[in-house]
Amino acid sequence: MNRRGRNVYRLSDIVHRFGGEVLGDADVRITQVATLETAGAGDISFLANRRYRKQLEQTRAGAVIVAAEDADATRRPRIVCKDPYAYFARVSALLNPPPAVSPGVHALAAIHPSARVAAGAAIAAFVSIGADAEVGEGSVVEAGCALGDNVRVGRDCHLYANATVYHDCVIGDRVILHSGVIIGADGFGLAWDGGRWQKIPQIGRVVLGDDVEVGANTTVDRGALDDTVIEEGVKLDNQIQIGHNCRIGAHTAIAGCVGIAGSTRVGRYCRIGGGAMIGGHLEIGDNVEISAATAVPKSILKPGTYTSLFPISPRQDWLRNASHIRHLDALAGRLRSLEARLAESEGKKND
Amino acid sequence: MNRRGRNVYRLSDIVHRFGGEVLGDADVRITQVATLETAGAGDISFLANRRYRKQLEQTRAGAVIVAAEDADATRRPRIVCKDPYAYFARVSALLNPPPAVSPGVHALAAIHPSARVAAGAAIAAFVSIGADAEVGEGSVVEAGCALGDNVRVGRDCHLYANATVYHDCVIGDRVILHSGVIIGADGFGLAWDGGRWQKIPQIGRVVLGDDVEVGANTTVDRGALDDTVIEEGVKLDNQIQIGHNCRIGAHTAIAGCVGIAGSTRVGRYCRIGGGAMIGGHLEIGDNVEISAATAVPKSILKPGTYTSLFPISPRQDWLRNASHIRHLDALAGRLRSLEARLAESEGKKND
Amino acid sequence: MNRRGRNVYRLSDIVHRFGGEVLGDADVRITQVATLETAGAGDISFLANRRYRKQLEQTRAGAVIVAAEDADATRRPRIVCKDPYAYFARVSALLNPPPAVSPGVHALAAIHPSARVAAGAAIAAFVSIGADAEVGEGSVVEAGCALGDNVRVGRDCHLYANATVYHDCVIGDRVILHSGVIIGADGFGLAWDGGRWQKIPQIGRVVLGDDVEVGANTTVDRGALDDTVIEEGVKLDNQIQIGHNCRIGAHTAIAGCVGIAGSTRVGRYCRIGGGAMIGGHLEIGDNVEISAATAVPKSILKPGTYTSLFPISPRQDWLRNASHIRHLDALAGRLRSLEARLAESEGKKND
Repeated sequence: MNRRGRNVYRLSDIVHRFGGEVLGDADVRITQVATLETAGAGDISFLANRRYRKQLEQTRAGAVIVAAEDADATRRPRIVCKDPYAYFARVSALLNPPPAVSPGVHALAAIHPSARVAAGAAIAAFVSIGADAEVGEGSVVEAGCALGDNVRVGRDCHLYANATVYHDCVIGDRVILHSGVIIGADGFGLAWDGGRWQKIPQIGRVVLGDDVEVGANTTVDRGALDDTVIEEGVKLDNQIQIGHNCRIGAHTAIAGCVGIAGSTRVGRYCRIGGGAMIGGHLEIGDNVEISAATAVPKSILKPGTYTSLFPISPRQDWLRNASHIRHLDALAGRLRSLEARLAESEGKKND
Repeated sequence: MNRRGRNVYRLSDIVHRFGGEVLGDADVRITQVATLETAGAGDISFLANRRYRKQLEQTRAGAVIVAAEDADATRRPRIVCKDPYAYFARVSALLNPPPAVSPGVHALAAIHPSARVAAGAAIAAFVSIGADAEVGEGSVVEAGCALGDNVRVGRDCHLYANATVYHDCVIGDRVILHSGVIIGADGFGLAWDGGRWQKIPQIGRVVLGDDVEVGANTTVDRGALDDTVIEEGVKLDNQIQIGHNCRIGAHTAIAGCVGIAGSTRVGRYCRIGGGAMIGGHLEIGDNVEISAATAVPKSILKPGTYTSLFPISPRQDWLRNASHIRHLDALAGRLRSLEARLAESEGKKND
Repeated sequence: MNRRGRNVYRLSDIVHRFGGEVLGDADVRITQVATLETAGAGDISFLANRRYRKQLEQTRAGAVIVAAEDADATRRPRIVCKDPYAYFARVSALLNPPPAVSPGVHALAAIHPSARVAAGAAIAAFVSIGADAEVGEGSVVEAGCALGDNVRVGRDCHLYANATVYHDCVIGDRVILHSGVIIGADGFGLAWDGGRWQKIPQIGRVVLGDDVEVGANTTVDRGALDDTVIEEGVKLDNQIQIGHNCRIGAHTAIAGCVGIAGSTRVGRYCRIGGGAMIGGHLEIGDNVEISAATAVPKSILKPGTYTSLFPISPRQDWLRNASHIRHLDALAGRLRSLEARLAESEGKKND
């Protein structure tokens, strides 16, 4: 396990910052977070799911973060708070700050003379930055990233190695692009014209709001005419495809392998499960949750959880059952016919 | 929105090139395309879907492209033509030509001495080109692209930043590879041999025909023994995976996130919806349309539209209904039994 | 087709190495493998599937590899063995050895002074290697790869162009990473905290065992607290996403476009079909086979083949049948009611 970052905090320091109450020795010194199972003396762990209460009893963690109802489930030094998982997230962020930025431009970067790179930004080897592009203070651009002409990257961003941003796209502040991310490639815009596809120039941009994170190998296409917009605080996992002209509402989280076809608008505070496929030109309202591996062929305006996830079975059982799906209409017809015949039969009998 | 390209055309210039008829002022000057909603005085817009007729009435576009049946739905200067969407595509291509190529090889490119780069090609920084490789006239290879030994790239191609082409692969003329595209990685060829997987060398190539476009992060594997072939005019969206030995017929269009397993042949003029998964060793005929998110476990020889897309429901409804799928065979059996019993009962009654 | 590698072997040389028996001229000289259809005089082909027996009769291959029961199906020189496909794999590996490694570090690579690159490793242009990183003897790192601080790459590995490995990750011996692979990006770890997502630092690593192969554009996320582990001999195809904290058991093979959500453990010797989506926090036992395009929402502990792959139909048929799925519960209720009524009716009649 990675152990970078060796800041030391006492439990009393932590509750001073984040609230909550210490039970037990408030002077215990903490240097890292860990799972209940692997934590040792300098580590703080947490219980967010009561399934793991057994592990809480057995943990050797220096301290743990628990909810009030679990405060007595251990005698280890502990912080009692409302939401142990969110609390743990804050503590982990405190113990594992991003590495300090070493500002400067590597000798083997290719920066267009008209580009503006802030003095406090760090540009690694093999980065290319196009004409009139801009990289803000505190931003890190790792090896092999390519930023096209007129790209704007805000402050305190982190572009991991080999990320690509096409010309004219806009990246807000504190945005994270992981490796292999492609922002602003052409949308799939084609017109059928005389026996062949005519490409439609994609002249919109991609605009990413502040605090957006984009996972490895995720792609967000530029707009055909207007922009593709990812609003502030949106979190995208790996291998997601977002088509041209989409708008993803603020603070929506999308898990890996999701595809969203062009011109669809997803609301704020949505949660979309891994592998879901969302059709084009749809409207998904705020606070909609879509299950993993679910296909969405139509708009969903009402908040709630939606799914089309199928049960899995041993192959032989499945083949036997699934074949009937093709004949459901006939089966339903036979049922209606039976109902009519039985009603008639019962009618006669009661005559 | 991106506003590069500032060519000016009058409506009369446009119909002179592309046909159609101007109604209203043929001297209106146009510099860009836009949606009905956002277009202003110098913009031309279009109506391709009658759903947007209301927007046509309200548009402030300098001109619009419409079909004959909508010619009277606006009094703005307009071009009347048969297929407004294809016409718009041509006008947009006219107004937004690709940027001029600035030929030359960047000082920080790594070109093998035996490679042949045409004088009119543009090779950016951090591009590596292997032994005996070839890049044709007018082709652009952006930053960070890697072309292996003996790769052949035709004329007027555009390889966006960080695309990769493995050794020996062939790229036709006017091909577009977007960022993150991987052409010619090894196919998934393995033989189970004494308790472990034995890798089978993948000695075929990938051959891309003329006018192919490949979307961001799409992968096309090299053939195991023979070649993987993408015929002319095929359009591939982002994040597609095409397995070894596949052949994709000319002018087929495939939307994002599709997977096609090895040795499958897809015909000409097919359209495959986003997220569809097509099995290996299948044959898909010409003019087949496959819906989004549809799994294709067997060959489809007859033209038509095929689907296995499931209805989506609120989670609670869904759980209640989906559980029956596992028991459809039993349910169908009970129905048959009821039919027999009722027939017997009716028989008795009629005795 | 690619014809690199021009070693020559007689059939007698081959059986001397790999066993089996020659029928016909054991002095036939072989330089390459090929399909039955395309093989010529210097090629050896194979019959592994009796569907192709017709092609065996017509082949012009210099020699073929067949099972005992097909030994008489051709009069060409042939090697008779138990498992022609595995035998063919070995012969192909013999005829197509990896190109010799040309050790050395390219002048345009950026290697941190504290990194340790073995004298026999080959580092191409535009490769960046971070502080304290290590690359073992005989390993090849192609153009544009980025290895973060403290990465360890073992011996005889091959990292194809534009692969990325994040800091602290460990790559075993004889590992192949294809282009666009991202090892060790942050997992999707977020806590909902006061109306916004709080990022949870991902402090685990990715550890890849010996003889692992990872296909183009596949991503494996680093662990949140503990490591993500891919055990020895695992084969991953293209465009796969493996979430944080997963463990994939030795010798498991996973086809393209599969997604595995975080904290799931997959056993040894599993085979997972293309496009399958496996949920998080699940346990998949050893020797489990999962069909292509199947969603797995719960653990599978018993060996066997599991599927939820749906039948595909012409769109009109499908729409008619699929609509009933939403009403299966009502349909089952009507069936139960009919059964009760008929039983009552039959009871009365027998009274």
